[in-house]
Amino acid sequence: MVSLNSDMGESFGIHSFGNDDALVSLVDTVNIACGYHAGDPVGIHETVRKNLEAGVTVGAHPGLPDLVGFGRREMKLFPDEAADIVRYQVGALVAFLKAEGGQLDHIKTHGSLYGMTSRDSDLAVAVAEVAAEYEVPIFGIPNSEHEKAAEKVGVPFVAEFYVDLGYTAEGGLIVARRPHATPVDEARQRAHQALSEGIATAVTGEQFPIRVDSVCVHSDTPNAVEIATLVRSVLDELKLSIAK
Amino acid sequence: MVSLNSDMGESFGIHSFGNDDALVSLVDTVNIACGYHAGDPVGIHETVRKNLEAGVTVGAHPGLPDLVGFGRREMKLFPDEAADIVRYQVGALVAFLKAEGGQLDHIKTHGSLYGMTSRDSDLAVAVAEVAAEYEVPIFGIPNSEHEKAAEKVGVPFVAEFYVDLGYTAEGGLIVARRPHATPVDEARQRAHQALSEGIATAVTGEQFPIRVDSVCVHSDTPNAVEIATLVRSVLDELKLSIAK
Amino acid sequence: MVSLNSDMGESFGIHSFGNDDALVSLVDTVNIACGYHAGDPVGIHETVRKNLEAGVTVGAHPGLPDLVGFGRREMKLFPDEAADIVRYQVGALVAFLKAEGGQLDHIKTHGSLYGMTSRDSDLAVAVAEVAAEYEVPIFGIPNSEHEKAAEKVGVPFVAEFYVDLGYTAEGGLIVARRPHATPVDEARQRAHQALSEGIATAVTGEQFPIRVDSVCVHSDTPNAVEIATLVRSVLDELKLSIAK
Amino acid sequence: MVSLNSDMGESFGIHSFGNDDALVSLVDTVNIACGYHAGDPVGIHETVRKNLEAGVTVGAHPGLPDLVGFGRREMKLFPDEAADIVRYQVGALVAFLKAEGGQLDHIKTHGSLYGMTSRDSDLAVAVAEVAAEYEVPIFGIPNSEHEKAAEKVGVPFVAEFYVDLGYTAEGGLIVARRPHATPVDEARQRAHQALSEGIATAVTGEQFPIRVDSVCVHSDTPNAVEIATLVRSVLDELKLSIAK
Repeated sequence: MVSLNSDMGESFGIHSFGNDDALVSLVDTVNIACGYHAGDPVGIHETVRKNLEAGVTVGAHPGLPDLVGFGRREMKLFPDEAADIVRYQVGALVAFLKAEGGQLDHIKTHGSLYGMTSRDSDLAVAVAEVAAEYEVPIFGIPNSEHEKAAEKVGVPFVAEFYVDLGYTAEGGLIVARRPHATPVDEARQRAHQALSEGIATAVTGEQFPIRVDSVCVHSDTPNAVEIATLVRSVLDELKLSIAK
Repeated sequence: MVSLNSDMGESFGIHSFGNDDALVSLVDTVNIACGYHAGDPVGIHETVRKNLEAGVTVGAHPGLPDLVGFGRREMKLFPDEAADIVRYQVGALVAFLKAEGGQLDHIKTHGSLYGMTSRDSDLAVAVAEVAAEYEVPIFGIPNSEHEKAAEKVGVPFVAEFYVDLGYTAEGGLIVARRPHATPVDEARQRAHQALSEGIATAVTGEQFPIRVDSVCVHSDTPNAVEIATLVRSVLDELKLSIAK
Repeated sequence: MVSLNSDMGESFGIHSFGNDDALVSLVDTVNIACGYHAGDPVGIHETVRKNLEAGVTVGAHPGLPDLVGFGRREMKLFPDEAADIVRYQVGALVAFLKAEGGQLDHIKTHGSLYGMTSRDSDLAVAVAEVAAEYEVPIFGIPNSEHEKAAEKVGVPFVAEFYVDLGYTAEGGLIVARRPHATPVDEARQRAHQALSEGIATAVTGEQFPIRVDSVCVHSDTPNAVEIATLVRSVLDELKLSIAK
Repeated sequence: MVSLNSDMGESFGIHSFGNDDALVSLVDTVNIACGYHAGDPVGIHETVRKNLEAGVTVGAHPGLPDLVGFGRREMKLFPDEAADIVRYQVGALVAFLKAEGGQLDHIKTHGSLYGMTSRDSDLAVAVAEVAAEYEVPIFGIPNSEHEKAAEKVGVPFVAEFYVDLGYTAEGGLIVARRPHATPVDEARQRAHQALSEGIATAVTGEQFPIRVDSVCVHSDTPNAVEIATLVRSVLDELKLSIAK
């Protein structure tokens, strides 16, 4: 079985963002922004409630402390500092889960923090230790430091596949600062290739094997709902969808 | 028995604040800033660890989202919004307690949020509901909306007495924007009067009965350590100190 | 002649906001957010450039330091502090005008700061003094403290009329926390009544005389472009539009 | 002649910082924090006033948007974005100079932004272009991208020497996240060597020639006043002090 996940709760006060309402009915699990790269207390609470009501599980999506840059400007952090930044945000999210009777499902870092922890062993382990405190899985890039840290710290690892981001030949993700639409045909092909053959293609053409436990659809690409619907249909077709 | 409490963790990054290290050995319980009026993840973590190691219990000290104003500039909030602002901060603090094997002891609002909730029933109830989610007491001003909200929501109420702030004739607190030294003789007299006779004196001269479950000493007054030492000696003298 | 003005530059990083691009061709002058209630350096710069290129004059739109609340949560400030908050923001905006060869046209406070300064004489004078430093007019509510402060400090006053906000019987504005669509017929009637007869109607039915030097259309109401087009057509019809 | 400069205005609301008051009488020119890594409107205003009254010239000290990290956590920025971040802050500072009848003397970037612009040509040029808009010098590290950018853009360059930071063998500065005391003897030797012989010594022992137009003393080292007094005495002794 392969889950479908999406980042949510990335509105900020009066500034709405993403396609959360439409996506809630399409996804299995969500990663909710925790206020550092986006998200404010009232919006986080609403997002938690909405997802729990829809039977969608809720993970934390902690990011770098950078609202203007949406957590997409890499920042040099000490591992302990990165861990505490994640602790703070995960704790904040858990308060809303507690208020609504839910449980934390997983931790998935956001934006540059996701990229940084995929490449830096010390940062990855520091963040994985927070997952260990909550006894939840880490979502991340297979074969990267995400997976190694999860193993080292002893928490489950959920290998993500992205249909709306490019890959490097080394299996790394290319995160853009601004969202752009994902061509549907390209997304369908990528999803099929990854889900039925276990193969991903880099932007430079190389193919490499990839493990997929969960497919991520970003909520902020202009055609996010279309892409999520497509991924759901591919998962259904391949009988990989999780029964709700 | 009457506890001695202090606000702590109000440093902010490289900007240190208060007399935390000296006060840890003098107090029974602390209220730790949660990042909205002061406090950053690394500093909060250190403060939690230090207090737990010293056998001091740890409560949350959520404030208004206003670093420059140190949470001392009153702000109009909807009750739901105030509750979510408190949920966010309490959750963040609890993450560090979880990491260090501690438990949340209580919630005490900071600065203007303390004042606002002491006067506004809806705000007070909204915040008390967060305490109910954690099944912890609310610290506050006796006979104010703090106490009424605690009763209404069904959480314990801990009546605080301040030796370093002035009282209005109605029993309200006068919170200054900037810390100032507390005259020691005045503090001793106030502490004695409140702890042995149950009487407080307003800045305008009126006397009124006051219940004292905990004495608060602010960590940021220039002579905070002297004042805390004094209060401890009065508590010892009156055989009100809690055995550690 | 009566100008048409709009608030702009209220995006925040990746979080877009308002209908700036469509409104640039409809308005005479804009009030650009300065980073405290909304706006970030890159977005402010773009907004300044776009308006100057279109021959639209640029004023500063300083707000309360509250991104999550979009400057719409009233906050207690000392007059000196309010002035410095405004100085900071106006200066920041002027740097972008300097970079693009433009000049500051006016200062118009945003949201709750607009409301607070319309009612509090000390705050209004403090802010008007910043306008005096730049020798520019203050935009505001006629007969309110805005107008009195401008007169006292010796800067011109531009009386604004709103077709998309309600008025109290005293001529005060009712600012909602979240934008809502303005009924077109209602807006047309209001604009006509104010511009041809000099009369405004309160939400409670009372009519009162109103001076109109500039009509403000908020950029964030869902039908902002429609409303701005309507106001322009009324101004044209009454031969009040400023020749560009 | 060689000036003595210090960073100032790095308090933040109630959180005081540095030894500004004592240093004002010792320095020739200051670099005032602009609110991104430290500094708030009221504090910046006070710092500007105090220095102008003392006849000290005032430059802008813009930093990365990171209060918790005090601008000392490197952050990946586009050059245009870095320039706009600097424009915003310089403009904000200039508003206070305008209010107090002063003029901007120079721009000196803070912390990691100083380090980043010393190494990255595109960033350095982007920031130097802001200095060109104000027709003021850039303070920086001699022979680094700071100096090259100033030359390219056509603004004067002021070569700084640090007695309280270590140098790499390549002439780069080693910026610590937390302030520490500078040994006085070491500082005296460094100052003498640099000012009389034009030689600096790297922490790894290598010596290299160094141009010194201004000596910087950080205001936040515990013995900042002692170090500034020492540098002033060395400047006096070598007849390099600027007549006030």
